[in-house]
Amino acid sequence: MGEFELLARVRERLPEPGPRVRVGSGDDAAVTVPGGATATSVDALVEGVHFRRGEATLRQIGHKALATALSDLAATGAEPGEAYVVLGVAPDLDEDGCLELLDGIVDLAAETGTSLVGGDVSRAAQLFLALTVVGHAPRPGDFVSRAGARPGDVLAITGEVGGAAAGLIDGAPEALVARQLEPQPRLAAGRALARAGATAMIDVSDGLGADAGHLAERSGVALRIAAGAVPLAPGAREAAERAGRDPWRLLLGGGEDYELLATVARERLDEARAAVHEAEGIELTEIGAALAGGGVEIRLPDGRELESRGFDQLA
Amino acid sequence: MGEFELLARVRERLPEPGPRVRVGSGDDAAVTVPGGATATSVDALVEGVHFRRGEATLRQIGHKALATALSDLAATGAEPGEAYVVLGVAPDLDEDGCLELLDGIVDLAAETGTSLVGGDVSRAAQLFLALTVVGHAPRPGDFVSRAGARPGDVLAITGEVGGAAAGLIDGAPEALVARQLEPQPRLAAGRALARAGATAMIDVSDGLGADAGHLAERSGVALRIAAGAVPLAPGAREAAERAGRDPWRLLLGGGEDYELLATVARERLDEARAAVHEAEGIELTEIGAALAGGGVEIRLPDGRELESRGFDQLA
Repeated sequence: MGEFELLARVRERLPEPGPRVRVGSGDDAAVTVPGGATATSVDALVEGVHFRRGEATLRQIGHKALATALSDLAATGAEPGEAYVVLGVAPDLDEDGCLELLDGIVDLAAETGTSLVGGDVSRAAQLFLALTVVGHAPRPGDFVSRAGARPGDVLAITGEVGGAAAGLIDGAPEALVARQLEPQPRLAAGRALARAGATAMIDVSDGLGADAGHLAERSGVALRIAAGAVPLAPGAREAAERAGRDPWRLLLGGGEDYELLATVARERLDEARAAVHEAEGIELTEIGAALAGGGVEIRLPDGRELESRGFDQLA
Repeated sequence: MGEFELLARVRERLPEPGPRVRVGSGDDAAVTVPGGATATSVDALVEGVHFRRGEATLRQIGHKALATALSDLAATGAEPGEAYVVLGVAPDLDEDGCLELLDGIVDLAAETGTSLVGGDVSRAAQLFLALTVVGHAPRPGDFVSRAGARPGDVLAITGEVGGAAAGLIDGAPEALVARQLEPQPRLAAGRALARAGATAMIDVSDGLGADAGHLAERSGVALRIAAGAVPLAPGAREAAERAGRDPWRLLLGGGEDYELLATVARERLDEARAAVHEAEGIELTEIGAALAGGGVEIRLPDGRELESRGFDQLA
């Protein structure tokens, strides 16, 4: 099957694009009318680095590629708008495989109200995907960056962490495996946090410690995290212990949970909590505070400090 | 070198972003205020498919990746705005290699007034790049699509074609090799053509015949091309003949010239020609016409019709 034929078959599967889209897939460029401010993020997933076929279905790989890209938008509080898909097709991936992969993308796009309006397909030695997502808000100041945390703010996290890392352990419960393979971008929670005055926000993709570090650095604050307050995915701790792994290091360092880590003024915490619960049916939990200074301190329940690992890896 | 360190070194090399950019590289997403309509295009370049190291320098590979993406914008008449770069780093590409590649992108971005505001870096088995580019215009109707050609319109092309294909021949003159390795996106010519009323436009990346086919199909017209009228790059025909290649097939089918193929009403042709010349210092040449019907007919000077090749390849 040629590129053009594949693209034609993909186009048949696409839902109607949203009202901002004037020219969709099939021209030199997609034409949109943003009508305000846009947030744009790109994300690559590479076979053997970010996923392995056999461990995940092609549909799950497609889903996760779009989910991780949309998670970056969630962390700005954007309303999802458009997505563009680059697909590098490995020699052993046939037409049905390509379409299964794209179905994972198309279904999540439909669920989240994201219009798939462009893409490119190439042969490649190794399967890869690169997703570009564009989100919207009326004004640029409506987006939450990583840079606005102030000393005195509460540090809070949506949902539960550690599930995705525990999901990689042999024999892990199915719910944890799903956290690894089918993450859900917290788009509604992100918008709720933005409206409730979150001062800074980031999605937890590299691990709680590493992502807190990014937020601390960009905001010019220190973050102190009480590990005992961090809500862990049910069964994650037990799975780590059974596997003989240091549970704190694994669960707080493992990443891929795609929850949102945000700072919020103490007086707006209750409002933020209620907004997240109403928007997405999940909890927002206070896990620490922003202080003057720099860096991240993760204090374990026994008083020890969790050493930070080198998360700075090319992955 | 880790991903974060590489990204930090890249950020040092970036020129100041344009006035639409509110949050640039380094956050979850880049924030822009488009202030009108946007045209967005994505393009992938994969080692062994679109380029070979050794035949092109890393700087040229970077340049070409952005050039081919911007060429799609040129074909809409957009003003270039922002670019986002995904880089898959092969094991044998070291830090200096990555930076040389990125320098090719950064320099063309600076030349064209494009702001590099986001990206992602991953390890990969094979070097690849995926570029997303966003262009702007006041209103969506200011962009030229592939779909607006009308029977009776003149078919015209900017510059000269065949140079890029001839540049692949062993011993080709340096100017032709440069057409292959360092294509220039015709951004100014594209904007000039849009203002001068081009009814449809496409960039010649797949080859004149194939791209005329895309335009004809989307517009619902037939295109008739007089091969003898097509301006060939100086020396291209001689290089093809020396190599024993069918010059028409090579020069009109080979692609990668990144010139613009446009339709324009007969009464605006002089205006369009003058506008292209003033904007970019190149010629706009009448090479055929749009007619009722469908398909593309390329008539050679001796009266034969050039058979269309199967261009529908995954590349």
